[in-house]
Amino acid sequence: MRKLIVNIGELATPFGRNAWGGADQKKRVERYRHAWLLLEDGKVLSLGTGDPGGIARVPGTEILDAGGLLVTPGLVDAHTHLIFCGYRQNELALKLQGVSYLEILARGGGILSTVSATRLAVSEELFEKARKDLDEMLKHGVTTVEIKSGYGLDRETELRQLRIIKRLQNELPQDLVATYLGAHALPPEYKDNREGYISLMCEEIIPEIAREGLAEFCDVFCESGVFTAEETRRILEAGKKYGLRPKIHADEIDAIGGSELSKEVGAVSCEHLIRCRESGIAAMKEAGTVACLLPATSFYLGADYAPARAMIEAGVPVAMATDYNPGSCPSLNLQFVMNLGCLKYKLTPEEALTAVTLNAAAAIGRADRLGSLEPGKQADLVLWDAPDLEYIFYRMGSNLVKTVMKNGEVTA
Amino acid sequence: MRKLIVNIGELATPFGRNAWGGADQKKRVERYRHAWLLLEDGKVLSLGTGDPGGIARVPGTEILDAGGLLVTPGLVDAHTHLIFCGYRQNELALKLQGVSYLEILARGGGILSTVSATRLAVSEELFEKARKDLDEMLKHGVTTVEIKSGYGLDRETELRQLRIIKRLQNELPQDLVATYLGAHALPPEYKDNREGYISLMCEEIIPEIAREGLAEFCDVFCESGVFTAEETRRILEAGKKYGLRPKIHADEIDAIGGSELSKEVGAVSCEHLIRCRESGIAAMKEAGTVACLLPATSFYLGADYAPARAMIEAGVPVAMATDYNPGSCPSLNLQFVMNLGCLKYKLTPEEALTAVTLNAAAAIGRADRLGSLEPGKQADLVLWDAPDLEYIFYRMGSNLVKTVMKNGEVTA
Repeated sequence: MRKLIVNIGELATPFGRNAWGGADQKKRVERYRHAWLLLEDGKVLSLGTGDPGGIARVPGTEILDAGGLLVTPGLVDAHTHLIFCGYRQNELALKLQGVSYLEILARGGGILSTVSATRLAVSEELFEKARKDLDEMLKHGVTTVEIKSGYGLDRETELRQLRIIKRLQNELPQDLVATYLGAHALPPEYKDNREGYISLMCEEIIPEIAREGLAEFCDVFCESGVFTAEETRRILEAGKKYGLRPKIHADEIDAIGGSELSKEVGAVSCEHLIRCRESGIAAMKEAGTVACLLPATSFYLGADYAPARAMIEAGVPVAMATDYNPGSCPSLNLQFVMNLGCLKYKLTPEEALTAVTLNAAAAIGRADRLGSLEPGKQADLVLWDAPDLEYIFYRMGSNLVKTVMKNGEVTA
Repeated sequence: MRKLIVNIGELATPFGRNAWGGADQKKRVERYRHAWLLLEDGKVLSLGTGDPGGIARVPGTEILDAGGLLVTPGLVDAHTHLIFCGYRQNELALKLQGVSYLEILARGGGILSTVSATRLAVSEELFEKARKDLDEMLKHGVTTVEIKSGYGLDRETELRQLRIIKRLQNELPQDLVATYLGAHALPPEYKDNREGYISLMCEEIIPEIAREGLAEFCDVFCESGVFTAEETRRILEAGKKYGLRPKIHADEIDAIGGSELSKEVGAVSCEHLIRCRESGIAAMKEAGTVACLLPATSFYLGADYAPARAMIEAGVPVAMATDYNPGSCPSLNLQFVMNLGCLKYKLTPEEALTAVTLNAAAAIGRADRLGSLEPGKQADLVLWDAPDLEYIFYRMGSNLVKTVMKNGEVTA
């Protein structure tokens, strides 16, 4: 089945099978005016500019008209926590009074109140909420989504969260990527027994996840008051033994050595990185780790923004994601993250596009097959109600997606 | 025609026929759990909690089920510039390099490039763009919209902008309120003749607007490099002579006496107010002027936020609006403004609700008939996909509107 998309006003895409940092993050975005794009069997076959000529006349080719608008790769949200029950709008009043996130956590709010609600929820409720969210994300142009566990913190609920991701994958068009984040917080029942919980994760839950094939990645919240760098290393090494690739929630509130671990454990990505130091940037650069930044969380918390420009200048590839969760970022809108990337991180539109497509794909080990529109890659793309790339970073608050294709099929 | 809305999870509305400042801005929001609302002939007839009893059995009463969700008054956007041609996404790169708004203006970009494009546009193009925007605003819960001229700056285009508002009013369900803002910038052809342009506005254009009944308000951009306080006074007094009520774009970049004028000219509202001083707050308080704040503009420009809390504490009623325009706020999403009201101005959800309903209605002289859900007022309301008032200020980036009613009719 061949499909030819003609009359593309601008086709903007990074090129590559790896994340790009440094000058490449901007320069390797190609911008074609008056372009066409040929798809076959759900993959990109070729692309070009001007009149596609004979290609359009090959029998059996379906012609689609892009109406002179912008086409980009489908967006990739590389960091979400969307399997949960228990929104926490009741904490807004505390936030407005200036109570800090760690203080709300200490009061039994924060993560732990969502953990209680998630443990009590029936699977169908968790599934339906996630399905609705993923459908809204698709309508916002997001064709691939990473989802972390971490609102169970016990064996049963963590496995349940991961099994729901598997079921969602069977029913939804998006590519879903599962990450085990048992080390999201210390569960209340292990409050005085850190060692017990770490052993439970390393010796029982991780092997079980591997047996059932429930996750590709293992992630740890390496933070003051959560897990130390030493504990993080231990959990990630246990994950690696069972084939789970490492990710690190690093340097969000305090820099306690999270990003510096990236080289030692071979982290695919470090995430948050608000307080990332030069030593962390250097470690990520050496390890080829993707810096996955979450500006909507900085926005919601009124926190500082991660040093995105310093990372790009140092050659570290920068991705951006929503961090969608009920505590520190109650938003699933990756377009808002794109606005923040320009306005707050001072990324150029090309750098920011790479951050939510190719580099986000690299952050979840998918850059070999998606994240850019080049021959052989999945035909995941967005047709925008926009004349050019700048427009989607300039307009704010409107969903500018007109049509979404996943594996060459119109899905939204 | 009677309609009874039952099963309202929470009905949240300010009460009153005037704007509320000080403690009242929070306290006069009523929040009813398990409520019902009775409408007749497009107006609110009564409301209550629990079982509506016999009211539901009056013959000819249509029953609508709110599904346990939140109902608020329809939102009022009291400050927009939506009749224009010429988006300016090309200025994003300059902004990211740190070029200031006034500098872009001085380079012939900014307002003047939109003025050129708007003068050249055919009326149909301006009308269609505005119609599409207003339709999207309605879907975001906005049932009343103020629209300013000011992208013509010549007699013909300014009148054309205002006539388009009149035509839009005839075709769309929203209440539209027209403001003449000829004093938005000095037109290039009067670059060396300020007096000539001010005379043209005061002696020719304002009388013509009055004859045709094209606007209710007159507004002036009182700012360094634009119009002085003395010029502002003169233009607003000319407007008053012809029945146009005064509004002031005051203290956005520099405080040059704009808000202090409010008492002298009897301004219905002052708008922007980022740099507003204590003397300006005192003048607004004495005059009963509404402070109409535009936080999405601060966000887009990376500027400071207006001292909203100081105004509320001083007893000045605070409204919030989008400022939707192609230069300093390319967003028409009032829900984003509501998020910013809490996160950046530190308003409570009740204060922020009042700011986009009753106080916004007061900023455009409509508090006698809309902006709150109380007997005798227009049945303009929003049914939200939300369980309570906090939720709509907490979730970001999703359009949470489920159903919109204007004058008792479902319109979105």
